Parts: sequence; C-alpha cells; structure tokens
Amino acid sequence: MVQVKINGTVNGHKTVNGVNGVNGHAKEDYSSILTRPRPQETYDLTSIEPDSFYGKLRDLYAEKVLKTQLEQLKKQGSYDAFKLQWHPAYEVRRLYGGKARTDGIPPSLFWESDVGKWVEAACYFLSCPDAKRFTHYEEFDGAIQELVDMIEKAQQPDGYLNIYFTVVDQEGRFKNLRDMHEMYNAGHLLEAALAHYKYTGSRQFIDVMIRNVDCLMHHFGLADNQLHGYPGHPELELAMLRLYSLTQDRRHLQFAKYLLEARGVKRDDQRGDTYFVWEAKHRKDEIVPPTMDTIEDVWYHQAHEPIRDQEDVLGHSVRAFYLLTAAADLGGSFLNDAKRLWSDAVDKKMYVTGGFGTEPRIEGFSRISHHLPQSTGEGGCYAETCASIAVMMTSERILSHELNGKVRDVLELCLLNNTLGGGSLKGDQFSYANKLASWGDEDVIRHDWFEVCCCPGNVSRQLGMLGGYTWSVNIDVHERIISLDIYILLSATRNIPLPNGQSATVSMRSEMPWQGKTEWEVNAPEGWNWKLKLPNPDYAENVKVSEDIEERDPGFLNVALPNSSTVTQSFDMPIRLLAPHIATGQDTLTVSRGPIVYTAEAYDNFEIEGEYKHFEGVGITSNTTFEELQETIHGIPVITLQANQPAYALNEVNQEQAYRVVNGDHPSRSWKRLSKGLKFVPWFARGNRGGVGHLRTGFLRADEVLSQA
Amino acid sequence: MVQVKINGTVNGHKTVNGVNGVNGHAKEDYSSILTRPRPQETYDLTSIEPDSFYGKLRDLYAEKVLKTQLEQLKKQGSYDAFKLQWHPAYEVRRLYGGKARTDGIPPSLFWESDVGKWVEAACYFLSCPDAKRFTHYEEFDGAIQELVDMIEKAQQPDGYLNIYFTVVDQEGRFKNLRDMHEMYNAGHLLEAALAHYKYTGSRQFIDVMIRNVDCLMHHFGLADNQLHGYPGHPELELAMLRLYSLTQDRRHLQFAKYLLEARGVKRDDQRGDTYFVWEAKHRKDEIVPPTMDTIEDVWYHQAHEPIRDQEDVLGHSVRAFYLLTAAADLGGSFLNDAKRLWSDAVDKKMYVTGGFGTEPRIEGFSRISHHLPQSTGEGGCYAETCASIAVMMTSERILSHELNGKVRDVLELCLLNNTLGGGSLKGDQFSYANKLASWGDEDVIRHDWFEVCCCPGNVSRQLGMLGGYTWSVNIDVHERIISLDIYILLSATRNIPLPNGQSATVSMRSEMPWQGKTEWEVNAPEGWNWKLKLPNPDYAENVKVSEDIEERDPGFLNVALPNSSTVTQSFDMPIRLLAPHIATGQDTLTVSRGPIVYTAEAYDNFEIEGEYKHFEGVGITSNTTFEELQETIHGIPVITLQANQPAYALNEVNQEQAYRVVNGDHPSRSWKRLSKGLKFVPWFARGNRGGVGHLRTGFLRADEVLSQA
Repeated sequence: MVQVKINGTVNGHKTVNGVNGVNGHAKEDYSSILTRPRPQETYDLTSIEPDSFYGKLRDLYAEKVLKTQLEQLKKQGSYDAFKLQWHPAYEVRRLYGGKARTDGIPPSLFWESDVGKWVEAACYFLSCPDAKRFTHYEEFDGAIQELVDMIEKAQQPDGYLNIYFTVVDQEGRFKNLRDMHEMYNAGHLLEAALAHYKYTGSRQFIDVMIRNVDCLMHHFGLADNQLHGYPGHPELELAMLRLYSLTQDRRHLQFAKYLLEARGVKRDDQRGDTYFVWEAKHRKDEIVPPTMDTIEDVWYHQAHEPIRDQEDVLGHSVRAFYLLTAAADLGGSFLNDAKRLWSDAVDKKMYVTGGFGTEPRIEGFSRISHHLPQSTGEGGCYAETCASIAVMMTSERILSHELNGKVRDVLELCLLNNTLGGGSLKGDQFSYANKLASWGDEDVIRHDWFEVCCCPGNVSRQLGMLGGYTWSVNIDVHERIISLDIYILLSATRNIPLPNGQSATVSMRSEMPWQGKTEWEVNAPEGWNWKLKLPNPDYAENVKVSEDIEERDPGFLNVALPNSSTVTQSFDMPIRLLAPHIATGQDTLTVSRGPIVYTAEAYDNFEIEGEYKHFEGVGITSNTTFEELQETIHGIPVITLQANQPAYALNEVNQEQAYRVVNGDHPSRSWKRLSKGLKFVPWFARGNRGGVGHLRTGFLRADEVLSQA
Repeated sequence: MVQVKINGTVNGHKTVNGVNGVNGHAKEDYSSILTRPRPQETYDLTSIEPDSFYGKLRDLYAEKVLKTQLEQLKKQGSYDAFKLQWHPAYEVRRLYGGKARTDGIPPSLFWESDVGKWVEAACYFLSCPDAKRFTHYEEFDGAIQELVDMIEKAQQPDGYLNIYFTVVDQEGRFKNLRDMHEMYNAGHLLEAALAHYKYTGSRQFIDVMIRNVDCLMHHFGLADNQLHGYPGHPELELAMLRLYSLTQDRRHLQFAKYLLEARGVKRDDQRGDTYFVWEAKHRKDEIVPPTMDTIEDVWYHQAHEPIRDQEDVLGHSVRAFYLLTAAADLGGSFLNDAKRLWSDAVDKKMYVTGGFGTEPRIEGFSRISHHLPQSTGEGGCYAETCASIAVMMTSERILSHELNGKVRDVLELCLLNNTLGGGSLKGDQFSYANKLASWGDEDVIRHDWFEVCCCPGNVSRQLGMLGGYTWSVNIDVHERIISLDIYILLSATRNIPLPNGQSATVSMRSEMPWQGKTEWEVNAPEGWNWKLKLPNPDYAENVKVSEDIEERDPGFLNVALPNSSTVTQSFDMPIRLLAPHIATGQDTLTVSRGPIVYTAEAYDNFEIEGEYKHFEGVGITSNTTFEELQETIHGIPVITLQANQPAYALNEVNQEQAYRVVNGDHPSRSWKRLSKGLKFVPWFARGNRGGVGHLRTGFLRADEVLSQA
C-alpha cells in the first residue's frame, strides 16, 4: 500500500515535473494552486448567522434535505450498492431501446457519485462548529462512517473502485471512458474523501481514494504502455487538483494537468484520432448514443479539439463547466480558456435565471448564440440545476485569480436563482431541468427523486460549503495587510488565523438579498490593516459606502481600514424589467429585483392563467410598477411583487389561421386590458405552494398599448 | 408467371374482398377509386402552352433537368446498379459512425427510387404529343428502355427486386421494414412502371412489378404464416392504389388497404407491439437510429398508433404525406384522417413558403404547433422539397373527393414556392432543405446532387404531370353536363372524350401567376352543357367573372355555360404583408403577391446585407409599398418587388450584454433608418444569379418607427 504524506513531501514516490508539450502548452508555474484555497477548504472558517436568509436555508438543508436524500439513496439502492450485490437496476445495460436512458448509460453508473455527493455535503454540514444541534447529527455521522466502511471494502486489490464494473461487467473496465463515467465517479468519491478527511481527520477514506487514483494513474497517461484517456464527464480533473493541494504530491498535479492537456488531442498512436473516437473505433462501436450524431462528434464531451482551441462552449453544460472549473483552477493559459468559454456561455447562452442549456437531448448548449426559448413550446429549454452549480464553481475559481464584478454577479445570480430553485423550500423535492415557462401538458413541478440524481446532492454540497463562497482572504505577512474579497453579501463571521498564533475576525451583517444594506466589523491585532473589496453589483443603484472607496477591480470597491473598525455599504435595488438580447427573437420582459429573478405562477394568478394557459399571449408594459410584499414561504422570508398595472393579453392569441395579412395594420398587435395585474414570486421559490406548476418568466412586452393610449 | 389482365377482370387469381376489421374500420365502398382519375392518369390529355410561364418551366425540365439528372444517376452509380455488381457505396452499411448517414441507412438503399422517379418523370414528358421536339428525346427514350431491361433482369426468381438485398445482404431481406426502404423502393418502381406502361403500351415493366407485388403480397398480410409489416417510408400504399385502378385486381386494392389498416396496430401475435417495435425486438436491436429516442418511438414513421387515432401530424414530413396521399385516395374514413392531419400540418406547422418540417434531425415536424423558426440560427428549419410535393399530392387527392378553396390554395402555394424552388432555373442544381433564412456559415445554395437524392426527381415528376394537376373533369352522361373543376390557373387546352366517339375541348388562357386574368373557351357538341368551377383564391381581391356565379363549394365559383361559349375571370393581387401566427413568437412580415412568396437576397441588397449579415436585425414597416418590376431570370418571366420605403435596422442588434434593463423604455426597440429599401424576388427564383446564398424571407416588423414619427 502506498502511503502519501498529506500536506508535505511525498513519501515513497519519485515526484515528477508537470507534463509538458502534450499539446504545446508552455511550461507554466502552477504553484499558486497551493495558496488559493477553495470553498471546500475554507467553508468551516465562516459561521453563517442561523437566523439570516442564508442561515435558514442552510438549516433547511442540514435538517431536512440531507435526511430526504439519505432516505432516497437507501430506497434507490445506491446506499447499499458498495456491498457489491446484484441489483435489478443493473439489468439496464447498454440497451438504448425500451426503458434505457436516451444516452444508453445504465442509471446505476451514477450511484457512486450520488453517494459521494451526499457524503461530501454531510461532512460540510457536520463539521460546522454548531453541527451537533442538527436533529439527525448522529444518524448522518453514522451513515457517513457506514458508507466509508463499505466503500473501503468494495475497493479491489489493484485499487480499482467501481460498482458496475466490479459486479456486472468486469471486462468492461476502462473500455468506454466516453460514456461510462468511471473517472467521473472517482472524482466525486475523491471529493467526498477530501471532505471526510477534513471532517473526521481520519485517513480511512482518503487513503482508499489515493489508492484508486494510483490505479488510474497506472493505467492512464502518456507512456507507451498507458491509455491516453480522460473522463467523458469531467470531474476527476478538479478533484485531482484539490487532492494535490492536500498531498502536495506533484504526481497528482501532473495527472490533473495530463487530463486537461490530453483532452481533444489527435495522436498518431491513436491512428490520428482523439481518444474517444479511437476508443469507439477500437470497440468497433456500431452504437452511437442519441446525444451524438456520429462517433466523431465528441463536441458533446468537449473533447473534439484541445481546450485551448475551443472558441465556443459546446455540448453538455455540466461537463463543460466541470472541465472549466479545473481549467480555471489550474490557471496559466488554462485560465484564459476558462474565461473565454465562460464569457461565451454567460454572454450568449445564459438564461436570465442563471440557467444554462437549451437542448434537452444533450442536456446542453444550443450551438446558436442567443437561442434561449423559455419552454419546450417555444423550441426547448433545459437549464439543469447542476449546470448553474458548475458555473458557480468556475466563477469562483476565476475570481480567485482576478476580481471581476461581472463574474461575481453571475456567481450570485446562479446561486440565488437556478441553483437554489433546484430544491423545494420544504426540503422534500428537487428539480433537474428548470424551464422558464411551462407548456402543454408538460410537467414542470419538482420531483421526489430521479433515476439519475446528480442535482439534489449538488445543491446540498453548495449550501454546505456556502461559507467558502462568501469571501476570500489573503494575508500579506510583510505588509501586515489582511485582504478580504467579498463574493456574497450575507450575515456571517469569520476567524482569520495570523502568524505567531494571532488571529483576526470579521463580522458581516447584511440584509441581502432583499435589501442592499451591509455592515462589516473587523478586528485584528495592533499593527495590522485591512483591505476590503466590496461588491458593486450591476443591479445596485445609489451605492454608498461609509469610507473612502476606489474601484481598482471592475465591479469591486476598495476600502482601506485600520485594525479594528467598521464600514457600511448601502445601495438601492429598484425593480428592473429585463429584455433579452434582440437576437433571441423574444420581445419580452422579465421582472427582477437585485440578484433575484421573478416568475409568475398560476397559484397567484389563477384568473389570468385560467384564461390564458401557461400565460401564453400575456404581456406587461415597460412602465409597470410593483408593490413589494414581505412574505414567508415555508419559513423562508421572501419579497413578492404585485404589479400595480393590469396585464394585457394579445387579441390574436386565439386566431386560427397560420398567417394573417397586416398591410398598413399598424401597430402590429392588439391587446385586451385584463382586470388584474400579475403577481410575481422569486424564481427559486416557485412551485412551493401546490398547483400544477404552470408559470412564465418572460412576458410579452405590450408597449403598443402605450402608443395607442 | 402470373398474368394479370389490365383494365378488366382478374386472370388466374381468386379475387378476395377487402380486409375488414383489422382495426375496426367499417367495411367501406372504395369503388370511387376507379372513377376519380389521378394526375398521373390524365396529364397527357392536357397540353400546356409552351410559351406560357408554366410551359417554359416544363421545357426547362424536359430539356435540361432530365438531362442533368440522367447524368447524375450515371455518375452516382444508381443507373447501372441493376446490373447487380458490387459498388463502393455498399461499404456504408449499418455503421452510424464516420461517414454514414445519421439514420444509419446506406445511401444506396434509395437508388431504385432515384432511378424510378427519373423513369417516371421522363415517361410523362415523353408521352406528351409534342415530345419529339425535345433535344434529348431519343436519348431519354433509349435510357428508359435500357433501365427497364436491366430492372427486368435484376428481378429474382421469386419476384423479389431490390439491389442492396440481392448484392450485399441477402439475409437482410424483409428483416427491417422500418429503416430499409424495400417497400418504398417497390412503390417508386411501381409508379415508374405505371408511367412506362402508359408511355409505351408495353407490359414489360408493369409485369415485372406485378410479379414483385405478388412477392410482397406473399410475404406480408394478415395470415398466420405472413409478416404483418408495412413500409417504414410510405409510398407503396399510394402506388398500389394506382395499380388497382389499372388492373382492377381487388387483391391490389386489398393489399393497399391492408398496408393502411395494419399500420400502428398493436397485435397479440407481435407480443402486444406494433410491427416496427416487434421487428426491432425480434432483431434484438441495440441500435436505434438518431431519428428515434428508443425503439418504441415509431412516431417518426407515423406508426405509433393506427392512422385513425393520430391527432397530430408527427415525424418525418415526407413519410407523413405520402401516407396521407394514399389515405385520401382510398377515401372513406381514411379521407377524414387525411383531412384532419392535413389541417394540423397546414394550420400549425406550415412555413409561409409552403414548406414543412422544422427539425433537420428528423427531416420533419416540430412536435410544437407554430414552432417555425426561419433558420438554423433561430432554432431550426428544414422545409424539404419532397414534403411540399407530398402535400401537393395529398391536397389533390382531397380535392378529388370534395372541392375546397383552402386545399386548392395550399396546393398552388406548395407548387409555386417550395416545390418549384427545389430546382435552379438553369436546370443544373437542386435543393433538398429550403430554409427561409441563411445563418452563420451555413450553406443555403443549391447543389449538383445529394448522397440521397429524392427531391430532384420528385420535382421533375410533378412538372411532368402538371397537366393532370390543372383541372379535373367529370362527365354526367345522363344530364349531358361536363364538369370542369379548375385547380391551377394556367394556359392549356384539354380534349375531353365523350360517349359515342364525340369529344369536347376546353382552352384556358391565363396570365397567372403574375396577373389575375384568365379566360376559358369551351366547345362541346350540341346538347351538352358545361359547369365550370373557378378558383376564388384567398389572395384574390375584386374578383370579377363575366357570367353569373355562385359559390357552392368554399373557395370555388360555379359558372354554368352552354355547349360553346367563353367566360373570363379577373382579380387583383395586391402585395400582401403576411404576419405569422402570434404563437410563433415572430413579429415579422413576409412579402407576398398572389400565390408567390418573396424573399430578399444579398445579390439585390448587398449594401444592407453587407452591414447586417443575413439581414439579421433588419425590419420593414407594415405600410411599405412596392414597385413591381418585370424581369426575366434564365428565360423565366418573374415580377420582382422594390420597396418604395427604406428598410430599418435595430440599433440593439450589436449589443453585447445578454439582457438589458428597459424600465419605462417605451417603445421597446430603436431603429436606424437605412438609405435604401429592400428588393425582393420570388422565393422559387432565389439563388439563381450567383452569390453565397444569404437571404431572409420574414423581416422584423419595424412599426415602432411609425409611432415615433
């Protein structure tokens, strides 16, 4: 058994310099990886105020959601799957017909990751200082240990660790990296092990995973006797970089670099093909999953060309941003790749809710810029919860290199809308796709669980490590400056260890996301000074800070403070009506307030929705104003918005003919004034009060009525 | 060898009454099939004026297009394929990867139909009275005979006739009706044989095909020892009905009925599945073509449920309307099915150009009503030439049962726009998809030929039998009334045989499709009278007829005339700006004039298109007027339209941000007035004068500028 020393030099292994020249990347210095801690490594330094908005949400996840998910994992079979017994779910193998998934992948192939994400999330919550107050503390702690024991026993003598390819198809090991998720699962278990080590201090789980990583590094790499593969679904890359920060074993860094650099490279020893194409030909595949057109089309996996050559973000949204998270984390030229593709996604392929992915068939991006229909009925919509989480992850890594207000705004947008909306406020149900409008008989309500259930555990992870997303601390020991970059405005305190056993504290009290008032109280030993960088969000107006400010990084306000002091910030968040880019072809208005995007549900607007199903043909004018209402939905405080002006409905909405003659028929559309105005609720809070899930987020812009008036 | 007497009683076969009760169809009388002649059976009674618009187009096809297509068939390999030699195209078998077609079907599987359609079209043109004036008359006549000789020799002893499953895969015969097009090809060869019999009077080809039909009827049917299959791509059904009209062999009617009635029926002896699902399970298919999600999803083939239960037109557009052509032809309750699905397609899934099919992946309909994006860049567009031809075919069959002006209008719309536009006006190139707008780097120009080349030959067939689409004649011998239902206004004469060796003639002279003036001169023996039904098109205004009229059938004007007389009709065709249904989400204007739809090309508008690529963001106002210009494109007279008012361009078109705040920002969009107006050409005439094929059909409606002015 290989023992790797954690946080120190490598034991028993020759360290090797980073891979170089695979696809022409200059030799770059990636040492900053060790000094830029990630949310997973710092979350426990921050205590989020339990009575605050975010604190209540975290309690919901710690009390109810983790419990719901644990029960579902047990019911699904994944909890016990590491016992390596047969399960009926394994019958669904590579049959595309009948009840198999459309991508031909047995649903049980995701079980390691489902369990891994639960363990990881539970460890985050249970390692908080006040964790013992949670009702199910003992149960969760026991489950974690039971799972880790089972996982340890499920590992094969060579370090291999995958249920399906141990129980069902031993011959299939490492034969189909493109589809079979072995490396994806390894990555999630590795992240779980990292969380477990941090929670328990025990090496039990992380040692299992280091042995598993050794197995992977044995089989995959650039040597002649190795396969030159990489994950069909990225995840292992970012987990390996996290492992490297813990072990400082350069082989771990090297393997992560290899995975990023080898991706999409055509090789002579793969008959001139990229790995997935070579692998498919080697298998003599006659089968192409419905997510691809031919076996050459590996853009779905972001593996059609090297990352540095990819100009447009393509394919499966979650895969794309798991990959870019690792790229941004590694830095160097990969950071530029991540930023380029992040911009393509955010500027041209992002829903107003922070959702990504237009095409359900590929759970991914439209190849067309600004092709963002709201519903299936308008041409497709997906907006998977995990994709918004993945964009949060990439955004955080980009911010750790360089502050940029737009990146921060997107991180917050994704968190407060499409991510948070992935779970019900009762903690019992979850959404996978998050379509912006309902249509026909289509079901847009949340569900108890899914056959492939990546999203629910992913939201739990994000809320578990929310403290780590809140801010970033850098200590300049020579200048004695504590730099605090604020990512999320919320109520929390953080302890900051300083050299020589000293420490500092920062306390932030914020009324966000509902009101733009925040105050900071900082305390450090004599001789230290603070540099705070406060967010200056795009949605904020009339921004005031109690101290002198300057904007050095776009979208952030620098404040210099002495060792013990306070600073306050306030801004207004007027309700904004957002129009999508003209190239979407949608002349619609979406209501937003600060970082919160709103939607209108049948529940609040049953008279209008009763007549105009799914609010089709319903519009509002751009001069609409709103009354702000303080409400509570399942204990979570929200602001809802009641329009002060009536909505309108297109008179043409019920026309029968496909085309109508409109010569001289200005203005183009005629509207019926409805008797009521629409009521809107925050997007994340939709679908929490019953009803059939009819809703709409972007309403037609009825401004013709202003001309006519 | 079975000899079937043509046009008479059946020789050597016991006639069997129609199949009954397969899926609950009441026993219906289909004898009207024998009295409603089809365009393929009457085209040669009509002489279209060579110097007229339609006459010039027919000459183009007789002189140039048939020659181009013959050369392409020889180059492609399909011409000689009946020699049953190996061809490299056969290498592409069921491999979905690499260069195979996305539906996994070897392109050579369509060769019989490619050849069949050419033979059929050539026979139509060559059997016209003045055919000997065509330059290539001798060459075409020789090629027809050479092909028929080869086809005859390629037939197997049991009557089987299919190149691929004779040369390449004998074991594969009748194993995959869903994908492998054996019945589709048989249908097209049968239609070719019917045309050949009519052209030559020789039974050589039709006897081959009757033997082939015997082979099919031997293997398929309702008996316990038969397979209960039907074509994956309908075509055989409509060909069998045509064959029945010739042979009056009720077995042929019975087989056509069987094919229609068995479709989509779940059967106990197919383990409760429909045929295609049973067949796929029987093959133990792990392969699902990309056109399907699972092997259960046979809606792509309109085979998911019995035709009578199908409420929405689904799947591959050409398949759908080949099927509905046969359904309408057979009549009875099937006519209702055809009308119901025709209406769904025309009212909710038809492009303004008479194009059908939004989804390139399935070459078919969106499952969403009014989902009709103009281009790939707006979410997809296909509008295959063959689909419009298939809708023409179905429309003609519906009209043969009952006159309806809307059905006639659609027939004419499809003919003059998406069908006619499928070929260049030089006769050398063809289009398959007909997207209404170009986008990005996408190629929307016509091509020399296609790997699967169904459309070019299909346009030739339609123009070859255009005389048969022009009008329908019914003789009431007792009342001595000649009824003439006019479908297409054009210049032509028709001889009408009457009892006792007498005959009548009708001459129609029309300025359509460019001007609404038409006159008829009718001549019949003493004692006969005429009943003309003149079209009253939806686009016609100020309609005047020189005789008393009444409208008994919607959209048709009845005129009663004595034996020898004349009648004239005139109407105006003001330019119409058409707005699509509000549910398309497109607030656009398309220019049309009478039955002709217009488009704007970069060729005429290079300054505007140079600045606004593909005219994205360019709009016109609903009060735009136009100057009408008489032009000739490659010898074909057309009217082009020059806007008298300038176009506008959206100022927002170059915005970078994905969403913009527009509170109170009425009106919604701001426009830049351009220095020029747009010039439009008929849709069918697009892409004939060089250029890269940038164009747009629906322009944004810029009516905000009218409010602002």
